[in-house]
Amino acid sequence: MAKKERSTMDKIVSLSKSRGFIFSGSEIYGGLANTWDYGPLGVELKNNVKKAWWKRFIQESPYNVGLDAAILMNPETWVASGHVGGFNDPLMDCKKCKARFRADKLIEEYIDKKEGEETIVDGWSKEEMEKYVADEKIKCPECGQADFTNIRQFNLMFKTYQGVVEDSQSEIFLRPETAQGIFVNFKNVQRSSRKKIPFGIGQIGKSFRNEITPGNFIFRTREFEQMELEFFCKPGEDLQWFKYWKDFCKKWLLDLNMKEDNIRLRDHSPEELSHYSNATTDFEYKFPFGWGELWGIADRTDYDLRQHAEHSGVDLSYQDPSTNEKYIPYCIEPSLGADRVTLAFLIDAYKEEALEDGNERSVLKFHPALAPFKAAVFPLTKKLKETALEVYNKLSKKFMIDYDESGSIGKRYRRHDEIGTPLCITIDFDTTEDNSVTVRDRDTMEQVRIKIDELEDYINKKIEF
Amino acid sequence: MAKKERSTMDKIVSLSKSRGFIFSGSEIYGGLANTWDYGPLGVELKNNVKKAWWKRFIQESPYNVGLDAAILMNPETWVASGHVGGFNDPLMDCKKCKARFRADKLIEEYIDKKEGEETIVDGWSKEEMEKYVADEKIKCPECGQADFTNIRQFNLMFKTYQGVVEDSQSEIFLRPETAQGIFVNFKNVQRSSRKKIPFGIGQIGKSFRNEITPGNFIFRTREFEQMELEFFCKPGEDLQWFKYWKDFCKKWLLDLNMKEDNIRLRDHSPEELSHYSNATTDFEYKFPFGWGELWGIADRTDYDLRQHAEHSGVDLSYQDPSTNEKYIPYCIEPSLGADRVTLAFLIDAYKEEALEDGNERSVLKFHPALAPFKAAVFPLTKKLKETALEVYNKLSKKFMIDYDESGSIGKRYRRHDEIGTPLCITIDFDTTEDNSVTVRDRDTMEQVRIKIDELEDYINKKIEF
Repeated sequence: MAKKERSTMDKIVSLSKSRGFIFSGSEIYGGLANTWDYGPLGVELKNNVKKAWWKRFIQESPYNVGLDAAILMNPETWVASGHVGGFNDPLMDCKKCKARFRADKLIEEYIDKKEGEETIVDGWSKEEMEKYVADEKIKCPECGQADFTNIRQFNLMFKTYQGVVEDSQSEIFLRPETAQGIFVNFKNVQRSSRKKIPFGIGQIGKSFRNEITPGNFIFRTREFEQMELEFFCKPGEDLQWFKYWKDFCKKWLLDLNMKEDNIRLRDHSPEELSHYSNATTDFEYKFPFGWGELWGIADRTDYDLRQHAEHSGVDLSYQDPSTNEKYIPYCIEPSLGADRVTLAFLIDAYKEEALEDGNERSVLKFHPALAPFKAAVFPLTKKLKETALEVYNKLSKKFMIDYDESGSIGKRYRRHDEIGTPLCITIDFDTTEDNSVTVRDRDTMEQVRIKIDELEDYINKKIEF
Repeated sequence: MAKKERSTMDKIVSLSKSRGFIFSGSEIYGGLANTWDYGPLGVELKNNVKKAWWKRFIQESPYNVGLDAAILMNPETWVASGHVGGFNDPLMDCKKCKARFRADKLIEEYIDKKEGEETIVDGWSKEEMEKYVADEKIKCPECGQADFTNIRQFNLMFKTYQGVVEDSQSEIFLRPETAQGIFVNFKNVQRSSRKKIPFGIGQIGKSFRNEITPGNFIFRTREFEQMELEFFCKPGEDLQWFKYWKDFCKKWLLDLNMKEDNIRLRDHSPEELSHYSNATTDFEYKFPFGWGELWGIADRTDYDLRQHAEHSGVDLSYQDPSTNEKYIPYCIEPSLGADRVTLAFLIDAYKEEALEDGNERSVLKFHPALAPFKAAVFPLTKKLKETALEVYNKLSKKFMIDYDESGSIGKRYRRHDEIGTPLCITIDFDTTEDNSVTVRDRDTMEQVRIKIDELEDYINKKIEF
């Protein structure tokens, strides 16, 4: 990691805390390993990201409908989905210092260092990994000894108990993904919404994975929020829909002003593909700590519905009403982490700029639809407080607006640049005469005079997405 | 429970399933005790309820800011809050048939039957309850035997393990309330948002309680969503703010068209008050199964911040910047269940009406701000599909809109009455001539002719809240 890059990440973390985007979770108790709380600005930013997803993927889409399934599901779900059997991290302990590692990560880091490039150890068997670690005499990153235990599979699902008795009868899991809540509801949703194939079901919600090595701020956390779409289509038409959603997802990021240079698409090689997948592409974002997965888009064929049909005994096939053809639909899954993409937008928006007067400003150039505050209202002096509050009260019926009366106007601009407020509205002594205000643009820093009555339309146009 | 009332509830549950408001969770696997999934219409309804809360309590309030804290918190939080020690259900088993009951509920039901009125057994000690059950020879509701075990305290928090090892070191809990995420962030939020007392922090999020007897549809579930505000004020000013928020909450319900007759406010008696509370009022709603708690509003004094200050060693007092006075703020907590109030709005909106033509309609008279679809677009015949889709595409950029082309217009009206769509927009053969459409109102069933260009404003005005 280059020094400059590390410092960008540090600045984001520090800004997040000082301005109220993101705090360490349970901080007064020393935190809880990599949990994070969204502060007053962070909750607005993340909600805006979720709204932008829902708008494009559900509201505007003639194909898709929404869902909000429970986090706690019947445990049989996770047998069918393969999570009980196969959702494991391969762990190895250093025999000397007892430090614990994911075998695949240990090998990846070793190859990275040796070959000088990023590697992904995927699809290796337990035996292959053990043999490689032993053959290469990979050393413990903590103590330097090359002596590891065999691999122990560790299931990543958080387990809890429902009801009064703690036994295997009452054992349930926190969902490790929102997707399965969609699959088990496929029939209920299709029937009640009278949707015809092709159609999709989208969902936003929390998932939980007992990761051994969470990290990189909100990039990988044990508790995280997903925005997932499961799009059902006719077998044979899956690859064309796969392309459709790949393009759709990319457009969503670009329309929200994410820089194209910071995005790359990585298609999974045939060896890397899951056995049931016809195609998978990862969208990666150039985080300060390296390229990291942002959006996974997978053609999952009929794997999930077929698994659930077999385990539940419920017929999950679809009958085409015009041709009477009956089949289990294929499914395209674009799966995006809400926290992770929020971090990407935060990083992507962060700029330090030299100003004409020789000063510097730090600015978050969010797409206005994502900005926590859409505008801030300033009285030029405290004498104008009453008029300014009238404007604030009127606008805050429609938008998230800040009211700020402390410090010079220049200071207030800097403060709102730093948190990404697209418009600053100043009430001055002419306002009471001409019913107009000065509106200053975050990015161009230009100022225009606008009638108070036209502010709502002006802001609406600015934040359009 | 009267027969008529039972049938209203049955109708709501059945409508919820058939039209896609609420499904049984994990239904294809036989469900999971009282978990529920929100379908395509349910997720919109519930999201609209949450948006309406956020709009009034956060966006428009000059006092309040938002927060989104993690579900998983440092376990010390729950020691400080009293949940580890005191958040228990008192359980008794019937010695004969082994059925398990909450002792307080057992006693309440017994008194209800005997005295013929609702009772609340609150603040009784374990010994008092055991003695009462024995003295009154209360019979087991399952088998009729009057022979119970002593009370066993059962903690309601769901417990899980973080990290690789399952031991008490790694034991964590799913939060049983969102409130504590606010208290532990008090300092971070106050500092970063530069708020002065009085101010509040609001949060919407999931909580989990291992209830022994969940039930009544989405009224009491183990996984549920809360909308909580913690409002911090100066000691001594708490009772006046308590009244302010009580009025504010009631206005929120009434502004969303909840019928005043279906709401009652119940002040806690001095004996019923928690030891730290200066005042508590429950808002109750007249559910078909009886009056049930909707909103709890409590003056919690400085109890929570003081507890956390003591347990964490962090100074959580506030220093008034103008007077330099230093104190631990008092706190008013209006706490509302999102699922519960969604159920109340669903029940409150449900109507069966006789029509002039002798037919009947079932209609959900939601406030338009809460309705899942704001409007539905119908082509009069399939020939007008293209024009209708143009209108649909344009409007769906702004609102949740349905497009429906199947069946007679009358049938389509009935279908949308049943799910509460406030406006139905019909494209007919004149539309291409006069660029106008017929808009039919759900409640009055009156029709008006509106220019396509004016539809957006028309809908915006209709859904205003």
